[in-house]
Amino acid sequence: MQYVVNGTIVPAGKATLNVGDLAILRGYGIFDYFLFEEFRPLFFDQYLDRFYRSAERMHLEVPYSREELTRQILDLIAANGAKKGGIRLVLTGGYTEDGYSPSRPNLVIMQYPMPGHPESCYTEGVKLLTHPYRREVPDVKTINYLMGIQMLPKLRSSGAKELLYHSGPHITESTRSNFFLVTADDTLVTPAEDILYGITRHQVLDIASDVMKVEVRDVTLDELADCKEAFLTGSTKKVMPVVGINSLVVGTGRPGPVTQRIMQAYANRCEAYLQEKWRGQKSEIRG
Amino acid sequence: MQYVVNGTIVPAGKATLNVGDLAILRGYGIFDYFLFEEFRPLFFDQYLDRFYRSAERMHLEVPYSREELTRQILDLIAANGAKKGGIRLVLTGGYTEDGYSPSRPNLVIMQYPMPGHPESCYTEGVKLLTHPYRREVPDVKTINYLMGIQMLPKLRSSGAKELLYHSGPHITESTRSNFFLVTADDTLVTPAEDILYGITRHQVLDIASDVMKVEVRDVTLDELADCKEAFLTGSTKKVMPVVGINSLVVGTGRPGPVTQRIMQAYANRCEAYLQEKWRGQKSEIRG
Repeated sequence: MQYVVNGTIVPAGKATLNVGDLAILRGYGIFDYFLFEEFRPLFFDQYLDRFYRSAERMHLEVPYSREELTRQILDLIAANGAKKGGIRLVLTGGYTEDGYSPSRPNLVIMQYPMPGHPESCYTEGVKLLTHPYRREVPDVKTINYLMGIQMLPKLRSSGAKELLYHSGPHITESTRSNFFLVTADDTLVTPAEDILYGITRHQVLDIASDVMKVEVRDVTLDELADCKEAFLTGSTKKVMPVVGINSLVVGTGRPGPVTQRIMQAYANRCEAYLQEKWRGQKSEIRG
Repeated sequence: MQYVVNGTIVPAGKATLNVGDLAILRGYGIFDYFLFEEFRPLFFDQYLDRFYRSAERMHLEVPYSREELTRQILDLIAANGAKKGGIRLVLTGGYTEDGYSPSRPNLVIMQYPMPGHPESCYTEGVKLLTHPYRREVPDVKTINYLMGIQMLPKLRSSGAKELLYHSGPHITESTRSNFFLVTADDTLVTPAEDILYGITRHQVLDIASDVMKVEVRDVTLDELADCKEAFLTGSTKKVMPVVGINSLVVGTGRPGPVTQRIMQAYANRCEAYLQEKWRGQKSEIRG
């Protein structure tokens, strides 16, 4: 596999940053991650929007125009030759002079084989473990995963897939996903604030609002006991049923009908996006 | 200047980590920083204690024994040939297989010219800007400085040296230092919890407890209005007078007598440490 480091395609094994980079010294950087199929990035505009917005919020200037970055990404996908996979963009604080102040950011584009989760995550559903935590800059996709990674041993020993973060009684998001639940009266609910505004979350809200009642609002831990279904959304998880939270069984303990309909509808939406968005552009993409 | 990357001395310009390192992907790592003079690290045992403790708290294994790491540090100082300077140790989550889970950590040792602050910071004192924030794992020296760095533009426009963090009414620490104040009845007070346990803080408490009343306890924002003096402690700042916090003038607005006595006593303590600790060991250090 090849990566791009500051505009140059290099073999992954030779893709390095000097240790004076502010990500290494101070954990300062932002990133984003999206899938591509048939050489075509999924919901590409939305991911690029978020990437540039994250950078701005952290006072980092993306060193390339959107057009130039798009070209680098598509060139990398073409160079690697795999039809589908994942792309990670990382923008760091750059090579700092004083060990603390950001300078011209370093930008790395990494490509991975198509990521996946065990089939059972979708057929059986997954469990979550609640944890009191609020990400430091929740609406920005920073590289800071200190809490989630520090908690990995506890998460794994509990058999849970992710942490479900809450601030006091308010549920926000999970470690790397957004959280939804279906109430007893069949309303789809997801937290409104102190979250990363996920691209998959946005698509799911758009899909669901045509077919059911949807509320984007404060969600409390108390509501978990009465909900009929719950699920996570994320770029690699897509729509993943949640059947247990701590010792609580969610609904019947099996992926529910609303979740299954949304899983299918999201798959259809992705397919439609790839068909429509890139129609007639293939030569341009590969070129 | 030369650095050490995973046990090998290399020129700083060639000291790199692959972009698959967990510090770059997820901001996951710990570090420490100490000074050395006459080739001799200051309060060396205490810094090494803290480094190994930070690693353990974040489930990272330092890949070298304490004896081996000591040897690498002293060899680096000898190789660079400067009598005094600063040393940074960085331990990252290593090259992750799944983009998230730690593996064998990477350890980098970086050397810098002796750091300093403008003389006026000591003769005139500095200002702080209060900010509501609690570091995520306060007692561990993680590389996460997202908040402090994101706030740099605001800090600089306010003319303040550092942010003074508080959780609700409770003062904890500043961006990269510990915080002390001298009350109206001449008691030296510093926060007890949700802080990094600074090596300089420890030395100052030890020095002061022989000559004045000292309290290590909760400290509230209300106490700032009545205090006579305040100062920061840190490895590079040493003991630095604080004369303003937001729009509040601390005491007379000038470095006070208690602060000045402690500044001098700390300098003496450093001198004494270097004389005693390393007596007769110079050939071993350089060897």
